[in-house]
Amino acid sequence: MTKVVVLVGSLRKESFSRKTAKALVKLTPELDFDFLDIGAVSYFNQDLEANPPADWVSFRERVAAADAVLFVTAEYNRSVPGVLKNAVDVASRPYGKGALLGKPAAIISTSIGAIGGFGANHHLRQSLAFLDMPTMEQPEAYIGHAGSLFDDDGNLTNDGTRDFLAKFGNAFAAFIRKNE
Amino acid sequence: MTKVVVLVGSLRKESFSRKTAKALVKLTPELDFDFLDIGAVSYFNQDLEANPPADWVSFRERVAAADAVLFVTAEYNRSVPGVLKNAVDVASRPYGKGALLGKPAAIISTSIGAIGGFGANHHLRQSLAFLDMPTMEQPEAYIGHAGSLFDDDGNLTNDGTRDFLAKFGNAFAAFIRKNE
Amino acid sequence: MTKVVVLVGSLRKESFSRKTAKALVKLTPELDFDFLDIGAVSYFNQDLEANPPADWVSFRERVAAADAVLFVTAEYNRSVPGVLKNAVDVASRPYGKGALLGKPAAIISTSIGAIGGFGANHHLRQSLAFLDMPTMEQPEAYIGHAGSLFDDDGNLTNDGTRDFLAKFGNAFAAFIRKNE
Amino acid sequence: MTKVVVLVGSLRKESFSRKTAKALVKLTPELDFDFLDIGAVSYFNQDLEANPPADWVSFRERVAAADAVLFVTAEYNRSVPGVLKNAVDVASRPYGKGALLGKPAAIISTSIGAIGGFGANHHLRQSLAFLDMPTMEQPEAYIGHAGSLFDDDGNLTNDGTRDFLAKFGNAFAAFIRKNE
Repeated sequence: MTKVVVLVGSLRKESFSRKTAKALVKLTPELDFDFLDIGAVSYFNQDLEANPPADWVSFRERVAAADAVLFVTAEYNRSVPGVLKNAVDVASRPYGKGALLGKPAAIISTSIGAIGGFGANHHLRQSLAFLDMPTMEQPEAYIGHAGSLFDDDGNLTNDGTRDFLAKFGNAFAAFIRKNE
Repeated sequence: MTKVVVLVGSLRKESFSRKTAKALVKLTPELDFDFLDIGAVSYFNQDLEANPPADWVSFRERVAAADAVLFVTAEYNRSVPGVLKNAVDVASRPYGKGALLGKPAAIISTSIGAIGGFGANHHLRQSLAFLDMPTMEQPEAYIGHAGSLFDDDGNLTNDGTRDFLAKFGNAFAAFIRKNE
Repeated sequence: MTKVVVLVGSLRKESFSRKTAKALVKLTPELDFDFLDIGAVSYFNQDLEANPPADWVSFRERVAAADAVLFVTAEYNRSVPGVLKNAVDVASRPYGKGALLGKPAAIISTSIGAIGGFGANHHLRQSLAFLDMPTMEQPEAYIGHAGSLFDDDGNLTNDGTRDFLAKFGNAFAAFIRKNE
Repeated sequence: MTKVVVLVGSLRKESFSRKTAKALVKLTPELDFDFLDIGAVSYFNQDLEANPPADWVSFRERVAAADAVLFVTAEYNRSVPGVLKNAVDVASRPYGKGALLGKPAAIISTSIGAIGGFGANHHLRQSLAFLDMPTMEQPEAYIGHAGSLFDDDGNLTNDGTRDFLAKFGNAFAAFIRKNE
């Protein structure tokens, strides 16, 4: 079964990005998702590469074991949250041999406001292009007004979003098959 | 004397960004620079804001005490290093009251290759625009081939770069005065 | 009286960007606005610079006569409409002496959908930074759902948008004064 | 034989982008290239779509007849030249049925300076993502110092660039096969 690591770009416990990712997982049974904890990945520092920290090693192994990568992220200051970008930086190294290199990817960005994290979404694309990761282009996923889409238990209550996420997950599965 | 905090976007001890920043400091005596350690700033997590970690508090205080901010950064994966973006994220909060808000800024990006970190430079600009930070536009600073500009003691050996950094520091001082 | 040229990034007669610009003009009596026709500006071609077409000359003169520039633009393909970008290209030349150089600017982007032209807005910012044009950062203006804001005569019917545009025009006037 | 339309982002007769494209064509015999004249494409204007100008119709037909698209472009004001963006805008419409939709693409950016048109390259990528065009990610092509690569007859004189363009053309041919 195709394995997809999920990197959620927010550490907040009740993160709308995580809820969005969880909702997509339920709606996409044909893929096997593995949520990684990016908060446990320490900062990239080239000086440590000769003897990498245990958290880098295990994180890179989990990424390397997957067939594809799903990013579901908040937007901080009109760009990618630092904690998520650091996870990309760690998994992109060592240079030319990183675990992310060439893996198919998809991006969902979320926000409480209307814009749906467009800035984070496209800044992340620029990094994934560098890593030669085929990144699904359509459908785009800008989940705005994320604060009004879930009930108190974190279940998706918005039908339009449910339909969209099912379609997105399905398209991603097809995209992975095409780019394997 | 005008006080400028310096955020260096690389944790590597022999970082070319840090060497570039140090060279600029020597060439700009009219400004008082304060180098902050972004590697000591833990990840932003909204859940911690009610009772922020000590490292956030002290970092935010140092930023708040400054008149302006200088970013000197490497480029990781065609964008801002995660560790630097996290520092921006922490110093940008709490929302609407962050220490960075409205402070004049300048950006120098560096790389070993020819392009000089253009991707990091402009992604960072997008974040600073959101934080209402007037950011110096000209001269632009893309320091390419950074591996060939310094001697073994980290001293700048390239005359063209020295002239450029002196001009840049001088322009930044004038820019801060205009935007205070 | 402070003179502002307005460049509308859409040639459509009933353009929502033009309607938005017209609404802002009514709400900002302290500025004197001059709408330029970017559809009349022929393509930039370096070969013609020695003997520039009449449309370039008159367009550049109108821009040069202004104190500031307001861009109100649609988004085409997640970026700046080609016709608007060409107007910027023509007014930016000859290199180092272009009419736009250094003039204060503001950007409003519009769209029929929710996102409000974020992609066009920030791509344009990257060009204005190169032209050393101080560009107002806050308030940002992403006018989404632009199809539902006006009546059949092109009058703004949405109170929130009216308040916002009045605030934006007022902030731009102050921004121009600060950056003159 | 696989047919590739070439859109050159500069109207200058001695354009380095055109010379670069011509050099690549010679080095890539397995693809059949068709150079289109974007200077002949009039501005996109939604009002004309019901009865499109002849230049739009013929341009769209030439694009539609191709299997893939190669963009070779200068950078104007740190972004895509307006004349090239307009060609994209015209070929992207009517909405949902444009001739570019879904076609594999590659981008080469050029500049006289060191940076090689990075800003134009990545802004264009954002538009192509919207048009669901799989865009080759590696190798990236930022052709800097383009003024020193050709002799008076427009022939490529730089061996490193020749090797790179041959490799790029070859990779693009493989990329098109994979994405058909």
